[in-house]
Amino acid sequence: MYLKSVRDERKIIMAIRIGILGYGNLGRGIEAAIRQNSDMELVGVFTRRNPESVTIRTEGVGVYNISDLEGMKDKIDVLILCGGSATDLPSQTPEYVKYFNVVDSFDTHAKIPEHFENVDKNAKESGKIGIISVGWDPGMFSLNRMYAGAILPEGKDYTFWGKGVSQGHSDAIRRIDGVLDAKQYTIPVEKALEAVRNGENPELSVREKHTRVCYVVAEDGADKGRIEQEIKTMPNYFADYDTTVYFISKEELDRDHSGIPHGGFVIRSGKTGFNGENKHVIEYSLKLDSNPEFTSSVIIAYARAAYRLNQEGQKGCKTVLDIPPAYISAESADELRRKLL
Amino acid sequence: MYLKSVRDERKIIMAIRIGILGYGNLGRGIEAAIRQNSDMELVGVFTRRNPESVTIRTEGVGVYNISDLEGMKDKIDVLILCGGSATDLPSQTPEYVKYFNVVDSFDTHAKIPEHFENVDKNAKESGKIGIISVGWDPGMFSLNRMYAGAILPEGKDYTFWGKGVSQGHSDAIRRIDGVLDAKQYTIPVEKALEAVRNGENPELSVREKHTRVCYVVAEDGADKGRIEQEIKTMPNYFADYDTTVYFISKEELDRDHSGIPHGGFVIRSGKTGFNGENKHVIEYSLKLDSNPEFTSSVIIAYARAAYRLNQEGQKGCKTVLDIPPAYISAESADELRRKLL
Repeated sequence: MYLKSVRDERKIIMAIRIGILGYGNLGRGIEAAIRQNSDMELVGVFTRRNPESVTIRTEGVGVYNISDLEGMKDKIDVLILCGGSATDLPSQTPEYVKYFNVVDSFDTHAKIPEHFENVDKNAKESGKIGIISVGWDPGMFSLNRMYAGAILPEGKDYTFWGKGVSQGHSDAIRRIDGVLDAKQYTIPVEKALEAVRNGENPELSVREKHTRVCYVVAEDGADKGRIEQEIKTMPNYFADYDTTVYFISKEELDRDHSGIPHGGFVIRSGKTGFNGENKHVIEYSLKLDSNPEFTSSVIIAYARAAYRLNQEGQKGCKTVLDIPPAYISAESADELRRKLL
Repeated sequence: MYLKSVRDERKIIMAIRIGILGYGNLGRGIEAAIRQNSDMELVGVFTRRNPESVTIRTEGVGVYNISDLEGMKDKIDVLILCGGSATDLPSQTPEYVKYFNVVDSFDTHAKIPEHFENVDKNAKESGKIGIISVGWDPGMFSLNRMYAGAILPEGKDYTFWGKGVSQGHSDAIRRIDGVLDAKQYTIPVEKALEAVRNGENPELSVREKHTRVCYVVAEDGADKGRIEQEIKTMPNYFADYDTTVYFISKEELDRDHSGIPHGGFVIRSGKTGFNGENKHVIEYSLKLDSNPEFTSSVIIAYARAAYRLNQEGQKGCKTVLDIPPAYISAESADELRRKLL
């Protein structure tokens, strides 16, 4: 109620009008995040599905077919692209930046330079802002790797992920014959974390950094020994890790493993001094109950930056590395200096 | 050797010419940090003392009197102001930004808005860049408070300092009658840290957040009971804390407590979801062997940003909150996207 009244008041002044394309976990996270930001309002959710089959949670806001998007280009300040990195975003982000300021969470690290070029070209032509690869990795983790590396040029970076659910690994288990459902957790190895934190600069193998724990629901009568063996020897996904497999019931899986937690650690350990005599450790970590909701919260903060940059007349593709920190905050530069510096 | 040859090569292209005003712990830290950054070179050290009484560690670089500074304004790209926040910087930063791009580490939090205005006015007139309050708190801690607050608008901030040496508290002990020397460590309370990390959002008193441990060298025959009592009841400095006092010999103090370590934790705990059902914890921490050398490393990275902003024709006062992250890195935007995002 508090939020709503504030939002209503500010709407008159400057509410940033947000559109959501794609209504999966991320789209729902964006919808929830908008409610926490009184300078934003949701204008519409766009989907490739039949709009009538999609029910959203924000009263008075419509669901539209994706084909209606272009016609609403004057009603939306920033369009959030909530599709997947494999097939949706490589085409959607360059396409929609022709009409909108956009933010995406493109996370195929190796293809970011190519994606950047595609978005940048079209954004420069349209005069819009496209912010790509927003979230926590890529995103806040990248940012922290960059800051730490610039501050301690003589040092070593470490990234650990987890404890968290890997959708890709869970899917890989589900494709095994005899498996009804599964959830896979990636867990950083505490001993490795401690060695890094102590500034020991260890060389760590894949196996030494993370373990994998799998909760598997097997079909009645399935050969559990064979399933466990198939998981543990699966190339790329599990073979290089110490993997533990637990067979549980569907009820247990639904009761104890329905969340999508994640997180991780970015650590840089470096030296300063005329003879490198002083060690320093910079650590950034996240512990997230909901991976998609946290990613959404980062995205919506950067939607604010996209809007402001565009208002200033800037255009082109940007990443979290390019954007002045204060642009993502709802508070004024004066307030930030007074309260946070 | 490797660094030196790289620096020599790049010097021809674009080395950023750095001047240092003030040669205490921070000035020496800046001198050491310049050696780790191949795109920078030290042009001179400036002092209020007799230059002949100051010996620096970089061969071929001169020590000058502060009165020579103005005459060298075309030889220096960025002047680093290494004086204190109490009396030096409030006058030096607004003064020298008339002639130079400057970076300071002004850390009197309450006076930052006033200092900002003073520097901004003169910098806008001179066409130079002045970056103030650079270091870790204010500095990297401020930045992390800002990012975390923008991402999780419904949440709570915590800052813990230590384990580290507080110069102010050590000085306060040294002023007690019968004390020859002393070192004071500020230590975060582990139980409080854990409660915050668990997302419990505790309300913490001053006493519940930090403890203070003092190592004191007393004069022969001094009343140690009285000294301990004076420390523990000292208003503002110790009275509100659980304080432990150890009396040790001068030899032990010099052997075990000659370093200037510090560090700390910035933690934000917040909620997302339609009903605030998901908790998230963002934590940034530093563990520093040398407080002044780490501060110097942050400053020198921001000197790069000052230079670049000025090259672009920007002017005025900036803080870490205003500066695009990539501006502090020696690597190009392309490289950063490819390697770190």
